[in-house]
Amino acid sequence: MGKIVTLGEIMLRLSTPGNTRFIQSDSFDVVYGGGEANVAISCANYGHDAYFVTKLPKHEIGQGAVNALRKYGVKTDYITRGGDRVGIYYLETGASMRPSKVIYDRAHSAIAEAEPEDFDFDAIMKNADWFHWSGITPAISDKAAELVRLACEAAKRQGVTVSVDLNFRKKLWTKEKAQSIMRPLMKYVDVCIGNEEDAELCLGFKPEADVTGGKTDAEGYKGIFMAMVKEFGFKYVASTLRESFSATHNGWKAMIYNGKDFYTSKHYDIDPIVDRVGGGDAFAGGIIHGLLTKATQGEALEFAVAASALKHTINGDFNLVSADEVEALAGGDASGRVQR
Amino acid sequence: MGKIVTLGEIMLRLSTPGNTRFIQSDSFDVVYGGGEANVAISCANYGHDAYFVTKLPKHEIGQGAVNALRKYGVKTDYITRGGDRVGIYYLETGASMRPSKVIYDRAHSAIAEAEPEDFDFDAIMKNADWFHWSGITPAISDKAAELVRLACEAAKRQGVTVSVDLNFRKKLWTKEKAQSIMRPLMKYVDVCIGNEEDAELCLGFKPEADVTGGKTDAEGYKGIFMAMVKEFGFKYVASTLRESFSATHNGWKAMIYNGKDFYTSKHYDIDPIVDRVGGGDAFAGGIIHGLLTKATQGEALEFAVAASALKHTINGDFNLVSADEVEALAGGDASGRVQR
Amino acid sequence: MGKIVTLGEIMLRLSTPGNTRFIQSDSFDVVYGGGEANVAISCANYGHDAYFVTKLPKHEIGQGAVNALRKYGVKTDYITRGGDRVGIYYLETGASMRPSKVIYDRAHSAIAEAEPEDFDFDAIMKNADWFHWSGITPAISDKAAELVRLACEAAKRQGVTVSVDLNFRKKLWTKEKAQSIMRPLMKYVDVCIGNEEDAELCLGFKPEADVTGGKTDAEGYKGIFMAMVKEFGFKYVASTLRESFSATHNGWKAMIYNGKDFYTSKHYDIDPIVDRVGGGDAFAGGIIHGLLTKATQGEALEFAVAASALKHTINGDFNLVSADEVEALAGGDASGRVQR
Amino acid sequence: MGKIVTLGEIMLRLSTPGNTRFIQSDSFDVVYGGGEANVAISCANYGHDAYFVTKLPKHEIGQGAVNALRKYGVKTDYITRGGDRVGIYYLETGASMRPSKVIYDRAHSAIAEAEPEDFDFDAIMKNADWFHWSGITPAISDKAAELVRLACEAAKRQGVTVSVDLNFRKKLWTKEKAQSIMRPLMKYVDVCIGNEEDAELCLGFKPEADVTGGKTDAEGYKGIFMAMVKEFGFKYVASTLRESFSATHNGWKAMIYNGKDFYTSKHYDIDPIVDRVGGGDAFAGGIIHGLLTKATQGEALEFAVAASALKHTINGDFNLVSADEVEALAGGDASGRVQR
Amino acid sequence: MGKIVTLGEIMLRLSTPGNTRFIQSDSFDVVYGGGEANVAISCANYGHDAYFVTKLPKHEIGQGAVNALRKYGVKTDYITRGGDRVGIYYLETGASMRPSKVIYDRAHSAIAEAEPEDFDFDAIMKNADWFHWSGITPAISDKAAELVRLACEAAKRQGVTVSVDLNFRKKLWTKEKAQSIMRPLMKYVDVCIGNEEDAELCLGFKPEADVTGGKTDAEGYKGIFMAMVKEFGFKYVASTLRESFSATHNGWKAMIYNGKDFYTSKHYDIDPIVDRVGGGDAFAGGIIHGLLTKATQGEALEFAVAASALKHTINGDFNLVSADEVEALAGGDASGRVQR
Amino acid sequence: MGKIVTLGEIMLRLSTPGNTRFIQSDSFDVVYGGGEANVAISCANYGHDAYFVTKLPKHEIGQGAVNALRKYGVKTDYITRGGDRVGIYYLETGASMRPSKVIYDRAHSAIAEAEPEDFDFDAIMKNADWFHWSGITPAISDKAAELVRLACEAAKRQGVTVSVDLNFRKKLWTKEKAQSIMRPLMKYVDVCIGNEEDAELCLGFKPEADVTGGKTDAEGYKGIFMAMVKEFGFKYVASTLRESFSATHNGWKAMIYNGKDFYTSKHYDIDPIVDRVGGGDAFAGGIIHGLLTKATQGEALEFAVAASALKHTINGDFNLVSADEVEALAGGDASGRVQR
Repeated sequence: MGKIVTLGEIMLRLSTPGNTRFIQSDSFDVVYGGGEANVAISCANYGHDAYFVTKLPKHEIGQGAVNALRKYGVKTDYITRGGDRVGIYYLETGASMRPSKVIYDRAHSAIAEAEPEDFDFDAIMKNADWFHWSGITPAISDKAAELVRLACEAAKRQGVTVSVDLNFRKKLWTKEKAQSIMRPLMKYVDVCIGNEEDAELCLGFKPEADVTGGKTDAEGYKGIFMAMVKEFGFKYVASTLRESFSATHNGWKAMIYNGKDFYTSKHYDIDPIVDRVGGGDAFAGGIIHGLLTKATQGEALEFAVAASALKHTINGDFNLVSADEVEALAGGDASGRVQR
Repeated sequence: MGKIVTLGEIMLRLSTPGNTRFIQSDSFDVVYGGGEANVAISCANYGHDAYFVTKLPKHEIGQGAVNALRKYGVKTDYITRGGDRVGIYYLETGASMRPSKVIYDRAHSAIAEAEPEDFDFDAIMKNADWFHWSGITPAISDKAAELVRLACEAAKRQGVTVSVDLNFRKKLWTKEKAQSIMRPLMKYVDVCIGNEEDAELCLGFKPEADVTGGKTDAEGYKGIFMAMVKEFGFKYVASTLRESFSATHNGWKAMIYNGKDFYTSKHYDIDPIVDRVGGGDAFAGGIIHGLLTKATQGEALEFAVAASALKHTINGDFNLVSADEVEALAGGDASGRVQR
Repeated sequence: MGKIVTLGEIMLRLSTPGNTRFIQSDSFDVVYGGGEANVAISCANYGHDAYFVTKLPKHEIGQGAVNALRKYGVKTDYITRGGDRVGIYYLETGASMRPSKVIYDRAHSAIAEAEPEDFDFDAIMKNADWFHWSGITPAISDKAAELVRLACEAAKRQGVTVSVDLNFRKKLWTKEKAQSIMRPLMKYVDVCIGNEEDAELCLGFKPEADVTGGKTDAEGYKGIFMAMVKEFGFKYVASTLRESFSATHNGWKAMIYNGKDFYTSKHYDIDPIVDRVGGGDAFAGGIIHGLLTKATQGEALEFAVAASALKHTINGDFNLVSADEVEALAGGDASGRVQR
Repeated sequence: MGKIVTLGEIMLRLSTPGNTRFIQSDSFDVVYGGGEANVAISCANYGHDAYFVTKLPKHEIGQGAVNALRKYGVKTDYITRGGDRVGIYYLETGASMRPSKVIYDRAHSAIAEAEPEDFDFDAIMKNADWFHWSGITPAISDKAAELVRLACEAAKRQGVTVSVDLNFRKKLWTKEKAQSIMRPLMKYVDVCIGNEEDAELCLGFKPEADVTGGKTDAEGYKGIFMAMVKEFGFKYVASTLRESFSATHNGWKAMIYNGKDFYTSKHYDIDPIVDRVGGGDAFAGGIIHGLLTKATQGEALEFAVAASALKHTINGDFNLVSADEVEALAGGDASGRVQR
Repeated sequence: MGKIVTLGEIMLRLSTPGNTRFIQSDSFDVVYGGGEANVAISCANYGHDAYFVTKLPKHEIGQGAVNALRKYGVKTDYITRGGDRVGIYYLETGASMRPSKVIYDRAHSAIAEAEPEDFDFDAIMKNADWFHWSGITPAISDKAAELVRLACEAAKRQGVTVSVDLNFRKKLWTKEKAQSIMRPLMKYVDVCIGNEEDAELCLGFKPEADVTGGKTDAEGYKGIFMAMVKEFGFKYVASTLRESFSATHNGWKAMIYNGKDFYTSKHYDIDPIVDRVGGGDAFAGGIIHGLLTKATQGEALEFAVAASALKHTINGDFNLVSADEVEALAGGDASGRVQR
Repeated sequence: MGKIVTLGEIMLRLSTPGNTRFIQSDSFDVVYGGGEANVAISCANYGHDAYFVTKLPKHEIGQGAVNALRKYGVKTDYITRGGDRVGIYYLETGASMRPSKVIYDRAHSAIAEAEPEDFDFDAIMKNADWFHWSGITPAISDKAAELVRLACEAAKRQGVTVSVDLNFRKKLWTKEKAQSIMRPLMKYVDVCIGNEEDAELCLGFKPEADVTGGKTDAEGYKGIFMAMVKEFGFKYVASTLRESFSATHNGWKAMIYNGKDFYTSKHYDIDPIVDRVGGGDAFAGGIIHGLLTKATQGEALEFAVAASALKHTINGDFNLVSADEVEALAGGDASGRVQR
């Protein structure tokens, strides 16, 4: 098992209980989550030494985020304390044809206003095996983008494998801004995760196939993966492929390309979905574990797609499953029989 | 946006949490609801000045009903305070092949014992654009039936469009009693909502097609709609058509007839159902909004059926959706993708 | 209606609310349950005088188990009070491809350490019509196995019909131990419930058909049922047949054989499952009621399979349904329409 | 231990959680309770065969009341099923200077509309040791008053000791009506419980001392008790004496008179009060147990006042304490030290 | 009853349930509140037409604040919709010697960034009887301070009585900044509410007496009240006086001065405190109602102090009591006896 | 800040919500706790590297205990995984004169059946500053007693200060057994915590003063402390002194003796108590922190008694307070004023 570092924002998530609407609810369920924190949790669950790097206020809401990470075994040694607020996102969970809704209130968070001197990235990356970040972090502020650049440089100096989940978020930046920041960062990246839309918006690749309706043929991804590898020299490119039948019923599979072979995973039918937030992060966490521990990219991908399918059955952003549970599903047991 | 008046009973609804049975539950979830109140909520959500007319006790349970209406923007200026009790209905929510159960405890409610002098219907109907009531109101007591008659007369004096949702309830009256009260009231009605069973039980129309099994061909409704228009001169007749596969899985569509053209809506597959109570009322609210604001009866119906399909995904009697959300679904997006 | 006696363990069940995982939950829902107690509840619901026989500590947790039984009408006159602890099982409810999990903590319970002199089985069986036990009881301890033997002998002395649900539990004993205890007990049994796996592990019958995948043809059971009747002289052999599509979606049917005719029930599609624990016990309860009150084994089986299908829609181990509700479903109404 | 019969109404109690006000609450806690049912619970807890006699609808809300009684060991054999509704009371729990509030919605309940032929009082009273009723039962309807009279007559025919808790309720009747009904019933009564206000309003006794402020000297009761014994021949007269410092802090003691000696109990300071509803009923239950099992009226009274003091620390109408717990408090241990 | 306008911020309040600490809680209770909104609620409860003026985002969290106001009868016609976020405060409720804690996250709220053109203050103040604001509003931002000035000027143009609650908040501004903003605004003020600390920090008055320990003699306030009236020409100056014995036990009284007579209210002992947030706002609301409807400043003050004492027994910021309930307490009934 | 090691059992605590009784509750609140684990939490909160040593099963209930410790910063590196069960204690929280109740179900827990080879105590004690254990650990089993001995020996080899909290538990052992185990262990102990009853039952010291009623004069402890120091050579002896007025109202102070001076702390009046379990452990944690960081035994004791007083206001076994919060209370601010 390795030392894995992720950098990003962890937010306070306030969600309405069950399927109640925002305007009906007299209480919010409280968890913490965010793309890179979620990846760290996955890695810790699989037995790695997972470190999450961020900045959080000294008050109890900041402490709550630290405690959520510690509880599930993520190392918080590199978290700087300070700043004013913990970013928030409000979540209303949909059902059937009513979609889930997210309202962001994350501007001015401690990590968005953090300074380079808040972190010693060479110390952080020392002896690390993997560094993971996502396109959300540079999008939250120019300061955060600079942190990502510094972290990537330190990772490369320390010989650490770097992965990115492109994760374009239209509420945080435009595609023009995204490309101006993201394209220069790709030179540090070994493993790139992102679907066609991310590739287009973050990196400027023109989509090849018609992806409307969410039922794209996985094969259609092959061309764009090849182009990505060609331009940026990624060792691996991977993507999930979601079919949205309704808010509670999705299809799910994934593809990976190692510059030579293109592999498509098994398909999962997820019904009902308990909580789909963090599904992509669970995939990234699975890819990291898979590529670090499996013999082939195919086995790595099957682990990752099973892990992320399982995430849809778990409340909260965090994918609270063990490697054994993921292996059991990847190995073919989706019957849901009671385990006594 | 117009002034819309509805008249009826609002009850205290006591439902068991989740899928627990009545005899298992140590608490009841509390909301308020009732056919015409639910329609008023829909209209308020779409931006209309919606007034709900009823009588409620002065105590806090009565106040709770007033507050529930105010919270969601319904005008309560015409609610008379007095009488002894708020009607109650107990609700147990089913799952799969176990049906939901309703136990009524609504006799002797304040509105069931209200007097004509409790309301000044000409003042209420002044400048109104629409008056809606349902077959439940005259069924709860002879006094309430008299209130409906007086309200209809005032509406007609003030030039207000009148709609009815026939809504036969076998626990409240027999079909003989229903017909003796309802048929004379039809002369005030412009828009009539009701399925074949309602048409038969409330108005005495013989069913044309075999509706057993709930899978009636929508076309089978055409004949009965024509007969209804012929006898009572309705401007529009409309009905929903529910397919009950299980307590948690229904099919849903609707039909409308304007005396000339017969229009059938899109079909929705609702799985899982969160709460189907108030689905019909959501349809009536959608029809009112649709006929007031849309160019064609087809657009009005598509709005109404999308609105009522969405209702099945929302807890409580009230259809807490915005016109934008309904338009998005009517416009074709049933994928349930997260809205960030 | 008859006097029905069941003997076994009732445990404290601690389950996480909704679909939360064990490690996420700050509270446990509390119910009580156990194979034979669940059967007693079913019988009480159908109007029988159902007695549950066990030993429970004098403290409040033991009293909680007594109260749970009394609440639903089970007679607790033959429960001995004493011993140290109430057995516990922890339950985490799965969803989609994530299975439910059970953790047992039942060793050293009061009934596992009970002595023959704790019970006067002849008094208990006096005037009884039926005695039911399951393979779990002799598995929990040698002392409990001895209690079963004594109870069976008293039942036979008093002319009581005896049924068993084989219910092999691999965490409690090996198949060798199971067969050494269970086979000698079969001579007391009139009605034997168990699937192929139970027949193999508890009684040593070789499986006939390939049951992997859970989609066995019901007809494949015929041979094994015939062999069971031949060897042990059972009056009836019955089994349910579960298809596990996912943790929340199962198929469900059952078979019965009276030594002459083999009957296969209707098939139920259960989606979503609310709580599948106790489904088999609900079947046993239904078989007892069915064989006591119905004209044919087919009617008995249809009652039992409808009862157990309904169980999957109800929280907790207990099948809290009335005979009328079961009859309605067995009679064909699975539409889940609201009952007002 | 004896057979104890009580007759009256059991209501569905809907209370707001914690200290929330009616208009704040989205859920109600559900318990069942009523004066005589509460007394039956006390008696069952102390080991008696306690029977509660009433009429309850056949639906699940009626069943809920039956189950609540059974759960705690009260015998429900004499409960008649039928009628329309279960009476309701809404409860909002106060704090400090804000009083608790009760809203009754109990008119037209099944027991208020029950007929004499619903009960076979001679069978009910057969072999009974005690029959208890309260002034609430004859107040709910003339039919219920007639039931009380019939029950009293049967009790006397069967040689059963009769107790009454006068319990005047000004929302149910006037003092004139109360006296016209209650005074003729006193001839059946052996043990009369009631404070000065009850004695005045139900029986027409003029108060002796000034009781304003709630700090009456217990001695002031002596005169009125003597008068009551003189007029009606009661064997015992008893009353509690509450000092209301605030909604959450009360003083509590009691007096008893056996026609010869007047005995005043210890004084309890109750802070905080968890739930004071049913405190008087707990006293009545304690008096019955005390007079049946103790050597002196003083011991009986100390048991009763300790039992009712404990009731103030327990949620719900029912006094869920064992005789051992009451004895421990009556014996002097009010330190509240943890019992391990 | 009059038209009363208040201007300020309404925040989302996220509080831990019961007495749990921030770091223990998996859910937050959700209410909305803020100084001036709380005053508006009080006025609406007493029967006035109370308008709350603010700016709130268009999303559902903003709508939640609007709905909370509407539910309790506050008019929301003058609320402008727009901006990015709803201010938040986190609340942890203490007990005994552990204090309650508040964490503010209110920077950048919609009202803090509102522009003068968002409001038409002359229209708002037209026909108003009273305008109330507090020192919190100008403290949240310079823009908000400007809104207060504009509102005050419009109020004076329209002949509206103006009251202020000084309410110094050290986390929002320094005393130097406060005085530079607040002193010039005093010329618009008729009724000034504030304790010695507020008078010192907001207005620059030197404290007269030693207030350490919270047990100041009310008479000590007389001098400072005279000075305040002398300098700013207030018609009334009033203040509450809190004794903090513990987080759950406070003493509470108040003083008022009309430039001629100094009046001290009754003293209340509040134990236990349910929720003390909004106690001061409840006092301000009581003062407004009292001065508008009572004959003397003494009666007005007794109403206000009783109202605010009651607030301490109610969850949430809002003082959900009726004028009748306040009058009953002010009239002397603090016994907390159950109201049936 | 130092490395602090504690050894013992952490149990699953199942408590009824609020003040409900065991037999009323349909859910249990879940926390984890145990004497030495609670001490570790206190030390972690004050900034020490606190290690808790125990054995826990590999399943999710065992993992829940690990996560609870990690969440609050306790190091779990020395926890061995294995064994069958997590010990349980059930807790019912009392009120007023009704005491809290604890039911233990801790026999056969993993730590009770742990072997010496499960732990490498020399590695554990290396570089440690303090080792703490309590009299509960040797009481749970002979195996656990042996672990304590081995741990003490390793501690002494490594030059670690050793403290004990005598903590006699009559349900776990007799005083004879206790003395035979505890007395030989005292030679390793530097700091001994225990009241007169513990000193008598665990160590065989005859009580000096009459402690009945819980109002012992602190001075009465001086003699016994001197005797304890004389016999066992403790560097410090300390004890708390609880006055139990009721389950919700206690007095609280403490004493310490360093072989020369006897110091008595301030007295705290705790009303209401939120949760008194763990109060003694919070005292031990405070003593350790105090003796490690304060100049005098008096300052150390004032820290410890303030810390443990605060514990009574916090739900759960763990004393979730910071050193700053304790210092504030020890410094004199018990007013409970809101901290904004």
